[in-house]
Amino acid sequence: MRIIVDGFGGDNSPLAVLQGCEAAIIEYGVDITVTGDQEILKKVADENKIDLSKMKVVHSPTVIPVCEDPSKIMTDYADCSMATAFKLLAAGEGDAVVCAGSTGAIVVGASLIVKRIKGIKRAALAPIMPSENGCYILLDVGANLECRPEMLLQFGVMGSIYMEKIMGIKSPKVALANIGEEETKGGELQIAAYKLFKSSKVVNFTGNIEPRYIPRGDADVVVADGFTGNIILKLTEGLGKMFSNALKSIFMSGLKGKLSALMVMSAIKGFKNKMDYTEYGGAPLMGTAKPVIKAHGSSNAKAFKNAIRQARDFAERGVVEEITNSIAQLKATPPTSDANE
Amino acid sequence: MRIIVDGFGGDNSPLAVLQGCEAAIIEYGVDITVTGDQEILKKVADENKIDLSKMKVVHSPTVIPVCEDPSKIMTDYADCSMATAFKLLAAGEGDAVVCAGSTGAIVVGASLIVKRIKGIKRAALAPIMPSENGCYILLDVGANLECRPEMLLQFGVMGSIYMEKIMGIKSPKVALANIGEEETKGGELQIAAYKLFKSSKVVNFTGNIEPRYIPRGDADVVVADGFTGNIILKLTEGLGKMFSNALKSIFMSGLKGKLSALMVMSAIKGFKNKMDYTEYGGAPLMGTAKPVIKAHGSSNAKAFKNAIRQARDFAERGVVEEITNSIAQLKATPPTSDANE
Repeated sequence: MRIIVDGFGGDNSPLAVLQGCEAAIIEYGVDITVTGDQEILKKVADENKIDLSKMKVVHSPTVIPVCEDPSKIMTDYADCSMATAFKLLAAGEGDAVVCAGSTGAIVVGASLIVKRIKGIKRAALAPIMPSENGCYILLDVGANLECRPEMLLQFGVMGSIYMEKIMGIKSPKVALANIGEEETKGGELQIAAYKLFKSSKVVNFTGNIEPRYIPRGDADVVVADGFTGNIILKLTEGLGKMFSNALKSIFMSGLKGKLSALMVMSAIKGFKNKMDYTEYGGAPLMGTAKPVIKAHGSSNAKAFKNAIRQARDFAERGVVEEITNSIAQLKATPPTSDANE
Repeated sequence: MRIIVDGFGGDNSPLAVLQGCEAAIIEYGVDITVTGDQEILKKVADENKIDLSKMKVVHSPTVIPVCEDPSKIMTDYADCSMATAFKLLAAGEGDAVVCAGSTGAIVVGASLIVKRIKGIKRAALAPIMPSENGCYILLDVGANLECRPEMLLQFGVMGSIYMEKIMGIKSPKVALANIGEEETKGGELQIAAYKLFKSSKVVNFTGNIEPRYIPRGDADVVVADGFTGNIILKLTEGLGKMFSNALKSIFMSGLKGKLSALMVMSAIKGFKNKMDYTEYGGAPLMGTAKPVIKAHGSSNAKAFKNAIRQARDFAERGVVEEITNSIAQLKATPPTSDANE
């Protein structure tokens, strides 16, 4: 199992990337290829006593900036560390890619270089989100702002397979993010997608989910267009931060607060771990022909290590193959025509 | 100052309504009119030792159910407690309405019976939401699922006036909920609305706001189409519940947890109060010709009392007049044409 890691993606690259790779080699026994400027990688490795001889380094001279037009990964930045990682994956010189660079460039680069699974209309970015009793997968969170109902159905299929194969959830509950539970709620997209899910019967569709019940864990897979999903993702981050600041201010208010904190430290840590994105690794990009994991832009070494583990599982457990089969089957037996109205 | 209260709106009506009215009369010195079945009101008041003689009761025999088609407030339920409240307001027999009934019926009933301010395209429901350093107003949260850019501009104007007049914030920061800060981000609606806000200069427009910065309090007025706003509202509720459950489990874990809780009780209460919707009263319906407050469906007596105070302020401080002037001015000097492209 060889994981290809973009050495220059994320705020803490390349150091955190190299540290994460080193830890993953030891902990998971995976082989690692790192892409990027080999001189810089060597220098950073030497300075930080990281044994680069355990990894394969593939030189790529440039880095695509986060603010750059994503489509430039195919032109001006065709030789960047991210594009190089995707080319290696497409050529079969590795089993999965981990990258913490520009989300837009990852979606464009992976879709065009690694290519999509046959029949998949769009790749979707699908972070694993915390809920009261575990976690759920949310897709899409921004790769596709405007969606058609068929795309949402495919998101549901892909998310369901991921949660079953990777998170071990039997028959995951798939729900559509909406402003009400009734099937007549929402805009045209939601109403049409509801019908399509209901008639296609390819996943365990439990209907619409109001966002107030998402954190309770009522669904294992939450399907949304990229705009709505991105709003859900970012508001969850913002409220998580607000709450963690509130906890801090409760426990930092004088001696009593600090004493109190000591007494419940393990419970606080448990909750913080649950909310901590570094524990979950990264967000799988669902729908590409080979596994791609988007690590968080601010990933530290631990987050990179966990993203590499996640990439290994993604490649090892046949998620792509299962999606390929399901989409082919869906095409062979399309939903009844009235659902497409 | 007379506040008209729908006696039969909300899960805890009519008892919580009457208790809230009684408390408001004592605390704020307002006059109260309650609408609804007078036999039931009298019976509940007697049973709970509430002095109904301090309020004016206007009999209305029916109640529009929450699940009913909202437009029926104009036909089958034209004599319901909610419609009666709006008719009294329209006739000048009170200064504001408080109602905890069906949101849809409130929007339809208020728009058609109380009517909209001249030039206002749509009334918007605008809850006051908690943030780290205070609160912000969010509009719309569901009255208008599909919006045009001009509607979002009007939402911004109305929200800005409310925050200035009622919450005392000078030159409130108005931002557009979006998935990125750049003016090219989002769908067609967001891109066009951004241009319109920028060129019209009627409010202190600070650009797009990503939802991760909403709880931090970066904006005083968050403008969104009704679908997006409703997602933000409900996810905030859901995550608030998740966090409050987490707090409970931290402090209820054994003797240490309970002792710890005692030591920081006042700080916990402070945070809970901040997150507590009953403190803020209800959500103003912005854009109607007279003030209407939508109280939360699960309002208790305290929430009704606070909603009545909010309705008093809404009526007293000339919010409707200021909106009327601003909209007239906006019409007289429309934004430059390139903003309407």
